[in-house]
Amino acid sequence: MRTIIKNGIIVNDSAAFHGDILIEDGIIQAISTHFDLPDAEYIDASGKYVLPGAVDVHTHMDLQAGAHRAVDDFYTGTVAAACGGTTSIVDHMAFGPKGCSLWHQVEEYHRLADGKAVIDYGFHGVLQHVNEQVLEEMKEISEKEGITSFKAYLTYDFKLSDQELFQVFQKAKEYGIVIPIHCENDGVVTYLRSWYRQQGHTSAKYHPLSRPSGCEAEAVSRMLHLAALAGDAPIYIVHLSTAAGLSEIRKAHALHQKCFGVETCTQYLTRTDACYEDPRQGLKFIMSPPLRKQADCDALWGGLQDGDIDVVATDHCPFNFATQKQFGAQDFTACPNGAPGVEERLPILYSEGVAKGKLSICDLVRLLCTTPSKMYGLYPQKGVIQPNADADIVILDPKGHRTLMHDSLHSAVDYTCYEGMELQGSIDLVLSHGRVIVRNNEFLGQPGDGLYLKRSHSILAQ
Amino acid sequence: MRTIIKNGIIVNDSAAFHGDILIEDGIIQAISTHFDLPDAEYIDASGKYVLPGAVDVHTHMDLQAGAHRAVDDFYTGTVAAACGGTTSIVDHMAFGPKGCSLWHQVEEYHRLADGKAVIDYGFHGVLQHVNEQVLEEMKEISEKEGITSFKAYLTYDFKLSDQELFQVFQKAKEYGIVIPIHCENDGVVTYLRSWYRQQGHTSAKYHPLSRPSGCEAEAVSRMLHLAALAGDAPIYIVHLSTAAGLSEIRKAHALHQKCFGVETCTQYLTRTDACYEDPRQGLKFIMSPPLRKQADCDALWGGLQDGDIDVVATDHCPFNFATQKQFGAQDFTACPNGAPGVEERLPILYSEGVAKGKLSICDLVRLLCTTPSKMYGLYPQKGVIQPNADADIVILDPKGHRTLMHDSLHSAVDYTCYEGMELQGSIDLVLSHGRVIVRNNEFLGQPGDGLYLKRSHSILAQ
Amino acid sequence: MRTIIKNGIIVNDSAAFHGDILIEDGIIQAISTHFDLPDAEYIDASGKYVLPGAVDVHTHMDLQAGAHRAVDDFYTGTVAAACGGTTSIVDHMAFGPKGCSLWHQVEEYHRLADGKAVIDYGFHGVLQHVNEQVLEEMKEISEKEGITSFKAYLTYDFKLSDQELFQVFQKAKEYGIVIPIHCENDGVVTYLRSWYRQQGHTSAKYHPLSRPSGCEAEAVSRMLHLAALAGDAPIYIVHLSTAAGLSEIRKAHALHQKCFGVETCTQYLTRTDACYEDPRQGLKFIMSPPLRKQADCDALWGGLQDGDIDVVATDHCPFNFATQKQFGAQDFTACPNGAPGVEERLPILYSEGVAKGKLSICDLVRLLCTTPSKMYGLYPQKGVIQPNADADIVILDPKGHRTLMHDSLHSAVDYTCYEGMELQGSIDLVLSHGRVIVRNNEFLGQPGDGLYLKRSHSILAQ
Amino acid sequence: MRTIIKNGIIVNDSAAFHGDILIEDGIIQAISTHFDLPDAEYIDASGKYVLPGAVDVHTHMDLQAGAHRAVDDFYTGTVAAACGGTTSIVDHMAFGPKGCSLWHQVEEYHRLADGKAVIDYGFHGVLQHVNEQVLEEMKEISEKEGITSFKAYLTYDFKLSDQELFQVFQKAKEYGIVIPIHCENDGVVTYLRSWYRQQGHTSAKYHPLSRPSGCEAEAVSRMLHLAALAGDAPIYIVHLSTAAGLSEIRKAHALHQKCFGVETCTQYLTRTDACYEDPRQGLKFIMSPPLRKQADCDALWGGLQDGDIDVVATDHCPFNFATQKQFGAQDFTACPNGAPGVEERLPILYSEGVAKGKLSICDLVRLLCTTPSKMYGLYPQKGVIQPNADADIVILDPKGHRTLMHDSLHSAVDYTCYEGMELQGSIDLVLSHGRVIVRNNEFLGQPGDGLYLKRSHSILAQ
Repeated sequence: MRTIIKNGIIVNDSAAFHGDILIEDGIIQAISTHFDLPDAEYIDASGKYVLPGAVDVHTHMDLQAGAHRAVDDFYTGTVAAACGGTTSIVDHMAFGPKGCSLWHQVEEYHRLADGKAVIDYGFHGVLQHVNEQVLEEMKEISEKEGITSFKAYLTYDFKLSDQELFQVFQKAKEYGIVIPIHCENDGVVTYLRSWYRQQGHTSAKYHPLSRPSGCEAEAVSRMLHLAALAGDAPIYIVHLSTAAGLSEIRKAHALHQKCFGVETCTQYLTRTDACYEDPRQGLKFIMSPPLRKQADCDALWGGLQDGDIDVVATDHCPFNFATQKQFGAQDFTACPNGAPGVEERLPILYSEGVAKGKLSICDLVRLLCTTPSKMYGLYPQKGVIQPNADADIVILDPKGHRTLMHDSLHSAVDYTCYEGMELQGSIDLVLSHGRVIVRNNEFLGQPGDGLYLKRSHSILAQ
Repeated sequence: MRTIIKNGIIVNDSAAFHGDILIEDGIIQAISTHFDLPDAEYIDASGKYVLPGAVDVHTHMDLQAGAHRAVDDFYTGTVAAACGGTTSIVDHMAFGPKGCSLWHQVEEYHRLADGKAVIDYGFHGVLQHVNEQVLEEMKEISEKEGITSFKAYLTYDFKLSDQELFQVFQKAKEYGIVIPIHCENDGVVTYLRSWYRQQGHTSAKYHPLSRPSGCEAEAVSRMLHLAALAGDAPIYIVHLSTAAGLSEIRKAHALHQKCFGVETCTQYLTRTDACYEDPRQGLKFIMSPPLRKQADCDALWGGLQDGDIDVVATDHCPFNFATQKQFGAQDFTACPNGAPGVEERLPILYSEGVAKGKLSICDLVRLLCTTPSKMYGLYPQKGVIQPNADADIVILDPKGHRTLMHDSLHSAVDYTCYEGMELQGSIDLVLSHGRVIVRNNEFLGQPGDGLYLKRSHSILAQ
Repeated sequence: MRTIIKNGIIVNDSAAFHGDILIEDGIIQAISTHFDLPDAEYIDASGKYVLPGAVDVHTHMDLQAGAHRAVDDFYTGTVAAACGGTTSIVDHMAFGPKGCSLWHQVEEYHRLADGKAVIDYGFHGVLQHVNEQVLEEMKEISEKEGITSFKAYLTYDFKLSDQELFQVFQKAKEYGIVIPIHCENDGVVTYLRSWYRQQGHTSAKYHPLSRPSGCEAEAVSRMLHLAALAGDAPIYIVHLSTAAGLSEIRKAHALHQKCFGVETCTQYLTRTDACYEDPRQGLKFIMSPPLRKQADCDALWGGLQDGDIDVVATDHCPFNFATQKQFGAQDFTACPNGAPGVEERLPILYSEGVAKGKLSICDLVRLLCTTPSKMYGLYPQKGVIQPNADADIVILDPKGHRTLMHDSLHSAVDYTCYEGMELQGSIDLVLSHGRVIVRNNEFLGQPGDGLYLKRSHSILAQ
Repeated sequence: MRTIIKNGIIVNDSAAFHGDILIEDGIIQAISTHFDLPDAEYIDASGKYVLPGAVDVHTHMDLQAGAHRAVDDFYTGTVAAACGGTTSIVDHMAFGPKGCSLWHQVEEYHRLADGKAVIDYGFHGVLQHVNEQVLEEMKEISEKEGITSFKAYLTYDFKLSDQELFQVFQKAKEYGIVIPIHCENDGVVTYLRSWYRQQGHTSAKYHPLSRPSGCEAEAVSRMLHLAALAGDAPIYIVHLSTAAGLSEIRKAHALHQKCFGVETCTQYLTRTDACYEDPRQGLKFIMSPPLRKQADCDALWGGLQDGDIDVVATDHCPFNFATQKQFGAQDFTACPNGAPGVEERLPILYSEGVAKGKLSICDLVRLLCTTPSKMYGLYPQKGVIQPNADADIVILDPKGHRTLMHDSLHSAVDYTCYEGMELQGSIDLVLSHGRVIVRNNEFLGQPGDGLYLKRSHSILAQ
């Protein structure tokens, strides 16, 4: 069957123009000044933006983190994503058992996601230790499974040492594999967490104090140096949260070091550490890195505008406030780290970014659709409205309005970080592979509709 | 009639993809995975790049410069342009009589161009003095004639003072008019030219010494400051030639000053002041600003890569070597300033930039097609392959090869600055409004085929 | 006769130490751990700082500025200076008649100053136009008169053009002459002053609006470029007032351009444009450049700390508020430009700088004594406590306290810009050539005690 | 007895002037225009520079490094120092037994040095691990022993972790203790050394390849971040060797981070990695960090000029070429790391720096005498010619000339890194505590003449 989206403003990362889109077999077949075919279903998009479906390259569905498990599995999590205009995710795997093969979590994640996800999904592998076998498996898994990126942590239980990272970076360069990295200085964070606890400073407001901005900036600088030493390895800084970290990125850019990829998340652009002042409500926002100052938010918007930051993702990792987050009520270090956000991203970025004049509509597509796709081997299948691309499409009404309320969201979690936020713009329709899966905030799809994304090598890493 | 370009690699500024293009009524009607229509003419582009026709926003056709007249009129000049893959020009007007109305040259240029140009053409106005009437005429001409940019010179006979420029910038901001500016410090240049002549240092090699890099950098800095003082007026630095000038641009970018537009030209990327060493041959390269050092070329390529330079143009302004240039044989200051290049730009940028790995094919389109169009009110009519755009298209064979020789070029001038240069890539076909006007380096069009471009306001100046 | 200053903390620009100073014949003969000589007069400086007499290289005594004459002649002005701890001035000459020889003002200033000044004094020449004769006279006057610096203005009636400045800079480099420059973009300032007047915006608060920060930054950048083009000519930026101007200095430093000298003044460090809000009182602060924002003050203190600013001077140029300043009551452009400050400098810099921890006591000596002396050919005669230096000395009691009130000051002018300011520290004693000329704020000297300073070439310009 | 040094050019860090120096009881009593006392011994210094004795804050006398022991003990090493114009050293202790108290090496070093050293000497403590006891001992030793600085290593056996360093920095800030740090990224260096060995790349030229510039730059950046996180702890970067490392220092300075102290050494200014090309001779230069490129040398000279580098030291650590260095003949990783240089520093810095116009004579004193003294709690006892300072003095003849030959040097080692270097300038006389200990390259003192320096807290760390 053919579908024609008529009269919308088609938006790609560098152009917004009036035109019609012809969809057949789940694929965008053509873009035209106008299409009038007898046997097609028509979707009227007059006065609406027609965007590529958004891509979220940083989610944690069904994550086991220590004693706690994130409450969204691949079904509820992807329903939430879909309702927020996201039609593809690349999920970050949890750690497996100590010493396990890289294959262990690959298999585990297929078990978790296959048959459940309602939108297309891929995985980032996760590195827990480094040796010859692990380095070999990176290559093998990238080839066999299309998992062409492997996450490294600089803090937490399975943090990698500089020596391990250097070897990973050399192989990543050789194999065209991208290394997303969580950048915080473990030594300082570990010491400060312990110190604050010893002082009895255990309420939520000590969480950001135990992970100061300089910890991120130091780690970013270190990774940029190590990547350069490894021959400009393709590293990707996840969830950048600080002006200080951004200034390290800018230093590298000014020296013409190719800094492969930099990501920030919705929350670091729009929320500040004032959220931790209420000891009870503050638990909702315990995540790492923590929320920062308004000056950091401002700097990050600047980074989006001038191209020093490439991607906006979510780090969606929801724990229930009423139960799981309460483990931190007496001690912030016992609170599971993470917060929901997969559904709120596109609506907030449109409202706070585009409607308020900080970003153009093309910038939005660049940051949420095109660059994440290019970065992680999904382009041009995803992230662009172009012949032969998957017909993953969002129709957004710039005149719409919405008050963000937890009740209207679809995640299994019991709160949102943005309760009561007034949003300009609303999502009318979301299509995945040419099928309407969301209409007026109602999910219309089925578990298992999502396809596994066997990703290519990043086109930016070649 | 319908034309279908089949199986090419369609290239826009942010995407290159396989697809077919449907042309009708001189317009790109649709882009599709494949088109098979019974009544269409087919052009096979298998294995070829299909680019938007290039736009040259800095030419000087039929220019009267003091005692000398550039040898290309709007016919020969646009034939040369077309054969080099350029399907639109925005020509910089010569100065009119002292004290004349801005309308004077508008009328003169219609006389020169209408009925002659073989590709679409527009004009930049030129400012010779500033008063209430001139400022009013800028607005009037932009509205009635679609001339939405007015050139200012900081040197030569009709240079503007800072006070004049400041007023122009304020109005430019108000009216959405772009001000292209020739940036050199007149005081120093005037003094040095006179001084070198007094010393008897009159051969070609003293030309660059009389216009040192710092003169450009100073003037760029001054214009950036004045534009900021006028409320971020939309100024556009023409023919940037130095690393020092580029570092002023970068300083402004680092301070988040919006520097509206920056252009360099083919010659500043590929030729150096070594060309002046031969006193006779050196005359061919007498242009302002002069050719610089290899380090400047390298810096400019860097500027193209990192986005600090927006456009590559030509400053095409040809004088015959055998006659006109010889006026400088005894005294470089008597040599008419300018050199040809309108035809060589795209082939050289492809070969030196794309084929040598300095630029991607999308970068090429950005620098030669899309950004110039956006900058000067031609987008999305020009500069992009997209429904509703004019069907101005270049089909380029990346496997082609060519030795640049004056004999194979189409300008009326008697030399090229690039004689003997080996080029990777060749232009197979050039279409203007859907008609093939160049095939295998043979021009197939007619005088007057080009349409006058009544330009919009720059979409970047809004 | 011998004088011994005992037990003080002797302060030079890089060291503060306990010791005794032996003075004989107006000269510092020796510095010792302790001196006990039978036939000497003793001054007890226990617990006090013993500083070199301060040097003010930017005053305008007896200045004729258009219709107005500054109210301090070389007697009252130098008495005020002395009472403020300044024991040498280098005065900036007023303009002479249009077209006059450089000698004209030299002779005029000897008439004004000789026999009147109570402390040592020198002159900066002033450039009003440039030709061969003027360039020759610069050399002649530097050799015969020890006037080794010539001021250039970029605004006002006798502003120099870039071409003139470039020639001056070349000769300055050749002759080792320093060129102090008033940096503001004349085109923008002239236009804005006229425009505000046309709009009827004539109260004091429009004075700073008519001379925005960018005008200074532009002019600073231009001078740095021209000085570099002239082979790193020794230029000296007077009265830097803005963060934007400072950032141009820093850019030059970062590129390892030797920026010869940069000066700011007391008022730009401690007063802001809030002073213009009261239309009546605001007239007191009409000076050029105008007072700026607090952020500019903060940046300038930073510049003093990190060495990007070399000198603090005063630009002392007093007009009576009750009469002369009232010419601006209806129109700020008619108000004589300038304000008093020669007496307040050292006390304010000590209190606001040293006592508040922004500067060390050695920094104070560097900025007010040593560097100005080195910059303008007075070192090591002035600006240092060292054998063979003139015994110009200030004894400052760090425990003293004072409320600045006009009544206690010695200038002929009828106000101070700092009325009511609370100051930590007080000047006990001032010696000039070994004689006590100020004790407890009482002047004890005689007209004509001051000697004319035939200056050497700047030791920094060699 | 009194000594008078007559008619020399007395040089301090900010002034050079003619004068006489009166010495009594080993102390500088007075500085005068001229002294003529009946009962004094006179030293004629006409036409000579009279400098404060140089201070070397980075030596390794009698160092046990793994299986090898540096060949200079505190007698031969300090004789060599004295003959090179160095009158004080602060020696870096070797590591003690694993887990030992900080006191262990303090006692050991008194045994090694007391009664042997011929010039004054102090010690830097060394940190091998960190716990409550160690942190407490830092304070105790600083108070009781005047050891107010403790060295940290980021590589080698006793490298500290970030967590340990952070705690040390916090305490250092609290106690006013300076932390000299050896900055190289251990992970990368360890990996590369092992890798080169595995590849059979074991000759000297692989030594620099196994410790690339980026390893230093990364580590410098990390330490600057950690010091800032600890509240601007007083850290001191030892032996900076690269332009990349310097650019990290400059980044911190530009952000107004107080970077406490930065040191480079003679060899990094004057020798390059070309020295490693000869596999045999190359062993002489195996030290860490390794010699770098000429561009690094140039950058370091720039850093000395603009004040981004504070101190020049030597890292004197001599191993005999004929025997000890030969352990590396088959494998560079087995070669003891270090080279001699304590005697060559001042002569080379004078000749390469001052005589060649890169530094002023005052700069030399700043870098070799005054700043090291201020940095490490020796000022104003050392590093300045001023009443009450120790009469440690060097008389240098700028007209002298010398060819550096191993035979004329005094270290126990069997080679110099500078064999055959032509030097402008020569040391005539060296005084320690007012006694002549070197005359015309002949040592005249006795073992044990040197006094232990119980150092104050750095005046820069307050």
